Amino acid sequence: MDHYFANRMHNTQKSFIREILKVTQDTEVISFAGGLPNPDFFPIEELSAASTKAMAEQGRNMLQYSTTEGHGPLREYIAARYAQKGLMVSPDDILITNGSQQGLDLIGKIFLNKGDKMIMERPGYLGAIQAFAMYEAEFLPVPLLADGIDPQVLETTLQNHNPKLFYSVPNFQNPSGVTYSEAARRRTAELLHGRDTIFIEDNPYGELRFAGEDLPSMKSYLGDNTILLGSFAKVVAPGVRLGWICARPEFIDKFIIAKQAADLHSNYLSQCIVAQYLQDNDLDAHLTTIKAAYKKQCDLMTNLMDELFPPEVTFIRPEGGMFLWVTLPEGVSSLKLFEEAAKLKVVFVPGQPFYVDGGGENTLRLNFSNSDEAKIETGITHLAHAIKTLLVKNSSLQPV
Amino acid sequence: MDHYFANRMHNTQKSFIREILKVTQDTEVISFAGGLPNPDFFPIEELSAASTKAMAEQGRNMLQYSTTEGHGPLREYIAARYAQKGLMVSPDDILITNGSQQGLDLIGKIFLNKGDKMIMERPGYLGAIQAFAMYEAEFLPVPLLADGIDPQVLETTLQNHNPKLFYSVPNFQNPSGVTYSEAARRRTAELLHGRDTIFIEDNPYGELRFAGEDLPSMKSYLGDNTILLGSFAKVVAPGVRLGWICARPEFIDKFIIAKQAADLHSNYLSQCIVAQYLQDNDLDAHLTTIKAAYKKQCDLMTNLMDELFPPEVTFIRPEGGMFLWVTLPEGVSSLKLFEEAAKLKVVFVPGQPFYVDGGGENTLRLNFSNSDEAKIETGITHLAHAIKTLLVKNSSLQPV
Repeated sequence: MDHYFANRMHNTQKSFIREILKVTQDTEVISFAGGLPNPDFFPIEELSAASTKAMAEQGRNMLQYSTTEGHGPLREYIAARYAQKGLMVSPDDILITNGSQQGLDLIGKIFLNKGDKMIMERPGYLGAIQAFAMYEAEFLPVPLLADGIDPQVLETTLQNHNPKLFYSVPNFQNPSGVTYSEAARRRTAELLHGRDTIFIEDNPYGELRFAGEDLPSMKSYLGDNTILLGSFAKVVAPGVRLGWICARPEFIDKFIIAKQAADLHSNYLSQCIVAQYLQDNDLDAHLTTIKAAYKKQCDLMTNLMDELFPPEVTFIRPEGGMFLWVTLPEGVSSLKLFEEAAKLKVVFVPGQPFYVDGGGENTLRLNFSNSDEAKIETGITHLAHAIKTLLVKNSSLQPV
Repeated sequence: MDHYFANRMHNTQKSFIREILKVTQDTEVISFAGGLPNPDFFPIEELSAASTKAMAEQGRNMLQYSTTEGHGPLREYIAARYAQKGLMVSPDDILITNGSQQGLDLIGKIFLNKGDKMIMERPGYLGAIQAFAMYEAEFLPVPLLADGIDPQVLETTLQNHNPKLFYSVPNFQNPSGVTYSEAARRRTAELLHGRDTIFIEDNPYGELRFAGEDLPSMKSYLGDNTILLGSFAKVVAPGVRLGWICARPEFIDKFIIAKQAADLHSNYLSQCIVAQYLQDNDLDAHLTTIKAAYKKQCDLMTNLMDELFPPEVTFIRPEGGMFLWVTLPEGVSSLKLFEEAAKLKVVFVPGQPFYVDGGGENTLRLNFSNSDEAKIETGITHLAHAIKTLLVKNSSLQPV
């Protein structure tokens, strides 16, 4: 059968995370595995009202084929929002995509030949690894420290390999929750200065900061050599399936060609509904509600982890986003912990798939955005129990 | 700048048709150029009601992330509709895509290595040419006759090249309006029998037959070696941006992997709205209305062409779909005709871009679905005038 398929498919497999998510459809299981926003805060009534209004006022238009670059008012909204944050971009620099995942695919399509080198954070976002692996990129993993990418490794990697792309999630990274500090941003930008390497600044969680201060976009240091990716999934709802690419005109021209070939244009019905929703509602007020809730959920989870996890288990306390990163003692396997925890009906994502070069066997990702207080309390209690059981098993297996 | 981009981008350009469409935004221009359905028949109120109902009943679910394969009820509806037409497929064999254009992109992704050979109809669908060109396929053009693909050329092409894929639009093809006769279907299937070549049966217009009888799907002859592509664009509305791939499980597994990497899943909001619409409305009654209207538009256009075009201009009378194919006398350029007709504020698509190997300079595509009677009357009158003007110019340029 394999002779049918293109070479790029030979080493691919279904997303480990999505397969885990399927297994955990069981409603009795408490899942910290998915990357799902809390549906309690989906603006269902507002989106329904926006749909009714848009259909009545522009139904013939919104149900027809549309332009590849996307709905004008939506692109203007995005540009205006960047301007509020001090980034001046034109609506013409924006292409609407099917979630920011499609942005990753289009980047692969227009930039990557087989074997082209690109920097990935270690651990790195799995969706990006999958998208770029399809274009047979050669990944150059650079470790992520608690405040950003490792500058020493970055410097030698840039010098030795002159990579084409550098993929990064500078705010509340998936999976680690790490945010690049201001100093790390400046240092990273200095190391990239004068190079052709294109910095891909993926920022799906940037609007979900619930602690600390907003930091400047990497584009404010790097300018035209940056491609920004954004998404409405976490600020409006994932089901609207809309994201965007923001880049210099020479890149946008190529993205439009690739997008035409890929699917002509993004869902226009959804674009018009979301544009109407954004026009009629106060997104910042909505975000204030979400952020307060996520802060509460994150605080509850980290406080319980402080209290219940053995001291040799460490974790990174995020300032926003949806994820927490846990490190077990060296030699303790998070895959084994997964089995142990599943018996107690609590699941998470083992860290290994986030490492393009292997490693990370003792790490795991927890999602705090999609569980209420009761689930967090029960789930972390059970997880702590599973960790202790595993540590005892492990120590009894040590040679004496 | 070019050194930034992947090799696959070096010979691409923006879609000629979409560029034409931009030029013809002028409301005074009568356009037979686009491939747009008639928006008079978009079920705006019904879709709006479906949106309100779905949001009220399943808002939390329809706004969340979803499965890559697509909304269950929508896949069941599609499988049931195939069953009505005598094709037994499982909902599990169906993957929902962003229009059938994404089906083309995913086919390229999972099957095509650079230089892999595939058969394209000559003339062929431009969206498919663009999608497969991105994967650097080697096209093997086989001429389309009035009743299907040329069997002699097909036979030698299969023997000499053993192509991996064969892309076809057997019903009311875009651009030619040609439908494979029953005899042509059987003959084509016989030639493919015992070969590995995968037949891609793209059928966006199949439900729009307004003359003659429905013919068996190519899959009914070829079985598992067929990939079916379908779309809601022409039967519901393009703006819902939903199509599907129907294929054997081994292929669907790979399509799911490619789709995950491309954009995780299709727009879920739109999938739930369309599923609700299909549950609450009679699609066949809706199609009866559309087909009656398109028949009237097509009849008017072809009758006027019979009456007004010079006899040396020929065309194919379609039994459904949205397009008419016109052939000018040998040596008369449809690009020159485009210039002449544009002066009279009527436009169409010159045929050349539909030929992967050049040629077709004297052909053009007319769309009849998106113009009312008044526009068809004025437009065809002006076009006839432009043709006559050009023929006179051409004959005066002939050497005596």
